[in-house]
Amino acid sequence: MKGKMKAVVKTSQAPGVELKNVDIPTIGPKDVLIKVKAAAICGSDIHIYHSAPGIMRMVNPPFTLGHEMSGDVVETGDMVTDIKKGDKVAVETHLPCGHCYCCQTGAPHNCLNLVIFGVETDGAFAEYARVPEVVCWKLPENYSYDLGAILEPLGVAMHGTMVEDVNGKSVAVFGCGPIGLFAIGTVTAFGATKVFALEVAPKRLAMARQLFPDVTFINPKEQDPVENIMKATDGLGVDVAIELSGSPEATKQAFKVLKREGRVSIIGATTAPVELDIHKDITRKEARIYGSFGRLIWQTWWQVRNLLNTGKFDPLPIITHRFPLADCAKAIELAAKGEAGKVLLYP
Amino acid sequence: MKGKMKAVVKTSQAPGVELKNVDIPTIGPKDVLIKVKAAAICGSDIHIYHSAPGIMRMVNPPFTLGHEMSGDVVETGDMVTDIKKGDKVAVETHLPCGHCYCCQTGAPHNCLNLVIFGVETDGAFAEYARVPEVVCWKLPENYSYDLGAILEPLGVAMHGTMVEDVNGKSVAVFGCGPIGLFAIGTVTAFGATKVFALEVAPKRLAMARQLFPDVTFINPKEQDPVENIMKATDGLGVDVAIELSGSPEATKQAFKVLKREGRVSIIGATTAPVELDIHKDITRKEARIYGSFGRLIWQTWWQVRNLLNTGKFDPLPIITHRFPLADCAKAIELAAKGEAGKVLLYP
Amino acid sequence: MKGKMKAVVKTSQAPGVELKNVDIPTIGPKDVLIKVKAAAICGSDIHIYHSAPGIMRMVNPPFTLGHEMSGDVVETGDMVTDIKKGDKVAVETHLPCGHCYCCQTGAPHNCLNLVIFGVETDGAFAEYARVPEVVCWKLPENYSYDLGAILEPLGVAMHGTMVEDVNGKSVAVFGCGPIGLFAIGTVTAFGATKVFALEVAPKRLAMARQLFPDVTFINPKEQDPVENIMKATDGLGVDVAIELSGSPEATKQAFKVLKREGRVSIIGATTAPVELDIHKDITRKEARIYGSFGRLIWQTWWQVRNLLNTGKFDPLPIITHRFPLADCAKAIELAAKGEAGKVLLYP
Amino acid sequence: MKGKMKAVVKTSQAPGVELKNVDIPTIGPKDVLIKVKAAAICGSDIHIYHSAPGIMRMVNPPFTLGHEMSGDVVETGDMVTDIKKGDKVAVETHLPCGHCYCCQTGAPHNCLNLVIFGVETDGAFAEYARVPEVVCWKLPENYSYDLGAILEPLGVAMHGTMVEDVNGKSVAVFGCGPIGLFAIGTVTAFGATKVFALEVAPKRLAMARQLFPDVTFINPKEQDPVENIMKATDGLGVDVAIELSGSPEATKQAFKVLKREGRVSIIGATTAPVELDIHKDITRKEARIYGSFGRLIWQTWWQVRNLLNTGKFDPLPIITHRFPLADCAKAIELAAKGEAGKVLLYP
Repeated sequence: MKGKMKAVVKTSQAPGVELKNVDIPTIGPKDVLIKVKAAAICGSDIHIYHSAPGIMRMVNPPFTLGHEMSGDVVETGDMVTDIKKGDKVAVETHLPCGHCYCCQTGAPHNCLNLVIFGVETDGAFAEYARVPEVVCWKLPENYSYDLGAILEPLGVAMHGTMVEDVNGKSVAVFGCGPIGLFAIGTVTAFGATKVFALEVAPKRLAMARQLFPDVTFINPKEQDPVENIMKATDGLGVDVAIELSGSPEATKQAFKVLKREGRVSIIGATTAPVELDIHKDITRKEARIYGSFGRLIWQTWWQVRNLLNTGKFDPLPIITHRFPLADCAKAIELAAKGEAGKVLLYP
Repeated sequence: MKGKMKAVVKTSQAPGVELKNVDIPTIGPKDVLIKVKAAAICGSDIHIYHSAPGIMRMVNPPFTLGHEMSGDVVETGDMVTDIKKGDKVAVETHLPCGHCYCCQTGAPHNCLNLVIFGVETDGAFAEYARVPEVVCWKLPENYSYDLGAILEPLGVAMHGTMVEDVNGKSVAVFGCGPIGLFAIGTVTAFGATKVFALEVAPKRLAMARQLFPDVTFINPKEQDPVENIMKATDGLGVDVAIELSGSPEATKQAFKVLKREGRVSIIGATTAPVELDIHKDITRKEARIYGSFGRLIWQTWWQVRNLLNTGKFDPLPIITHRFPLADCAKAIELAAKGEAGKVLLYP
Repeated sequence: MKGKMKAVVKTSQAPGVELKNVDIPTIGPKDVLIKVKAAAICGSDIHIYHSAPGIMRMVNPPFTLGHEMSGDVVETGDMVTDIKKGDKVAVETHLPCGHCYCCQTGAPHNCLNLVIFGVETDGAFAEYARVPEVVCWKLPENYSYDLGAILEPLGVAMHGTMVEDVNGKSVAVFGCGPIGLFAIGTVTAFGATKVFALEVAPKRLAMARQLFPDVTFINPKEQDPVENIMKATDGLGVDVAIELSGSPEATKQAFKVLKREGRVSIIGATTAPVELDIHKDITRKEARIYGSFGRLIWQTWWQVRNLLNTGKFDPLPIITHRFPLADCAKAIELAAKGEAGKVLLYP
Repeated sequence: MKGKMKAVVKTSQAPGVELKNVDIPTIGPKDVLIKVKAAAICGSDIHIYHSAPGIMRMVNPPFTLGHEMSGDVVETGDMVTDIKKGDKVAVETHLPCGHCYCCQTGAPHNCLNLVIFGVETDGAFAEYARVPEVVCWKLPENYSYDLGAILEPLGVAMHGTMVEDVNGKSVAVFGCGPIGLFAIGTVTAFGATKVFALEVAPKRLAMARQLFPDVTFINPKEQDPVENIMKATDGLGVDVAIELSGSPEATKQAFKVLKREGRVSIIGATTAPVELDIHKDITRKEARIYGSFGRLIWQTWWQVRNLLNTGKFDPLPIITHRFPLADCAKAIELAAKGEAGKVLLYP
């Protein structure tokens, strides 16, 4: 498809983004072109917007940002066999090479040559987006585009949270941003007993309380989380701690509230160094720790579908704001404040 | 404690049981004496009542039957350290030797010298029962005796069902007796998606439907279970099949409705030989099959407690009938008809 | 590449095969053409040769048989990206669709639309063979073509045997055909303690004894395997039983010699019905049973490479006979007799 | 048994130990008295000798130190049922309460009320030692007392190393003290491919090289371990890193040399804080980390017996020095220098 389209472009290393008229992407033989119907703002979009040093080392402006998305396939390359024009799809954002050791052993999401859609390629905050066929996930007919656009971050929560089961277990979730809320919904639907959730932003906390009335919420600025959780678990601690905040302080607390033989999943991107008391918090407790990155392709996507099929968790109320693509900067700034749930853009 | 008590006794190899006046058991130094407050009828009690050949080879009349129970500790042996007079307890019915290979490697419920309470010893259908301290499970204060009496069979369902997680998985439960109903409640609370349950007894089926309105029930005498389940799962079959009926026909069907890479748990005591198409149903599907016997001591008991703590499954409505101890024969006959849920006796 | 080549063709449903001059296969855009350097005879080739009813329902003569192979890539399709002309490769023989539920969830070897190379397509007993690029496995430089040709069946043994670890465990292998010998080599290198192996064919047994002097071999026609194994394991039985014979009798014995909480892997194609005593052999023992089919793509191939890298098992001596392609019928008849190890063909 | 015996006593908080004449321990009804035949020096004995602050907070002088031991049972309490006078035994040094959450769920070695023999009780560097019956491990007839005395530390290596299998995996062991050497022997016997081992003490390194000629040894003071290991693993890193040194620097390196999706086991007591780059080393790699403490009771002891039964690893050459009890101070000082393997004492 030839022509121009609107896109949100990171034009340089400087902070901010620009709404521009750019060429509609040309697809290769194994690619598809998708008309974007809904796109969601991720933490990394916020980092790109603010030109945070870590992520700026990965990117190569100018490029179109955005990666959480849903839409309709409008064009397919010559060698595309499974995806058809008209398919309603979401997109796995880890583009694997297909040939490296990780791709060959069941871990394409950890591909040694991984390219991240919308970070290292042109992305989804645009009228059209190009992706390889192999990262398209066909949406069931009854899925809305809004739901399609949040499957990828739901998968982040699912993959990290469910690396081991949570049935009948007590769980502490550190951070109540959108992924944290997805994690709370997941463990609740999958049979966790006592769920604790921690968050410092008062508005987020208020929203979270309303969405999950059975969860015990703690604002670590107001209450000592370790003392509170230990007390509420008969001094044993929680079976499972899920770190989603990226805060070194929260990471340390995750270990402090952990039961002997408990499990910590670290999903949050903790880029600052964290000083751990390994003997006390890991060895002596025989803790198990799992780093978590992205989602299994496609096991996690199926697991998300199955979670939704239980009817026990509806993630749509976690979408709190919706903007036209033109208001992207405003939307990102809102998301950055920690006062919103998931924020969607419509091209 | 000296004196006489009422007890339901299997006096000989002939069918039936007798209510008799017998000596209150004398306890050894590591034993406790429990005043039985509630006892539940198990399938093996029914087999003993009917003098079924398999179980009669294990028993040595005269003996008091019954093993699912709760009560209050009224006497403790000299070497008892953890259990105190007045403790409200339920009882693990697999009495392990503590020294064999299985006991030493985390599987006392499979003890090589296993003695089964109420089958190979005097049991719980009596005013008092003697058990070693090590099989006592202290009940939380808020547990009723009724709830205490059904923890052991709840554990049977839990152990077999949860040998692998069921989160977001489709499950078929073969047999809707009390253990089947416990299994349905467990997998529902622990996040199964689609649950199918099969039962040939119309009254059981009706009761089950009322308890679990979201489950798809099938009477294999009226509908082809394989055809129905395959259709309802897009031709893929279920992720998990739980065999609880002890019927060879059901066992075969459990394999037929199984998804590739699915899991079968066999809890039911299938004593008749079963002819399997191993290549088609096991090898070609890469099925995983788990035999299940009893419960982990005490991991499963904790898991049951945690299940109840989720508040997502109340097993008490599965108790449908209650009788005084004197009506034991009548109660067993009712349980044998397949028209009741769990049947309780009160000494 | 245009032209004619020699190929071993199953021309009809009647027993036997014919050496014929056929067209060199034309490749599609995602295919490669391989000059076959070595091919190995599998049990299913023997079944095809004899026109065994089970396999004849899968095939569609005329077709070239053979699937275990190594060779050099001589031509690549337009869309082939990873494999180059000149690459030395072996071939995964399960051709997955890439799109079904199994392909999407880490189990392409169980693909719902699986096509088996050399059974449902033209195969490897020919001068050239065509396969999709995605099933090519590049061989390290120091691998001989002989070694390359037996990686696929080594993978069968590996996948079924190592579904759980064997470290410090006792293992009984039922059947000492080539896969059985590969299984023995694998468990020995990976730290099994006591290894038992059973075989009824005297010549195979003699060869096996020579290859593995530390293994306890049993000819079930001469000694009672259950009695012998139970005695040699202090009455406990083995931790792991690997069924490779396809014999119902052996399958039953595998359960009889199993330790409580032991594991049975069924790799052999047991097409005759097998009558099991489920209560005694599975439930009461809490046995775990795994059906095993093919190999994980590519986890098992990497595992085989790693096994060979330990230097603790050399599979080459298991190749006992080598023939030119023209002697294929003679070679298959030899392999069918149970007197050979692996038999190779050279086009 | 009444009378006096020689014992190595920590008499106060001050550094050093004293050889004293003390009362032979009086046993309780569930205890046994063991005539100590061989005892081995552990790192914690060295810490006690030097009055290191961490361990001195746990102890309560005066007490007899030492816990790795073997001997003959010479007296048994009234309630002892399984152990007999004359039994040759080794001792599990984690004395569990038997009643807490950890004891009830398969983890008595992590008992919430854990008492450590020879640290929190009188120990094994004496002519006689008292332990509860439940921590006695009967030695097979063909075991020497020397072998019996090192089973406990062999179990430390086994438990931490084999929390996941090592078959066909590359392994880096950080630290070549006795536990490190046991770990190397274990992974080698259990089928690891490439094994790397790191040690800064030249004499230890020399001894290790001699014992394990197939292992790649690195002295981090002379070569960059990260660079070397990455190079030797095609830039992928190792599948498994075992931290045994207790050094923060080594702990960091363990993460740096880890393959994506690799596993780190932390056995060493790293009491100094360690600053980790969680995003890069754990999250982005999806590393799995296991703290490891003590041994499973008795699964690990069986696993050690099975390892020895493979005949693939003989731990006795790791015992390098033997002293009479009277030379205990000299023996501990030698062990502290990092120039010895395991050092034994004979009362």
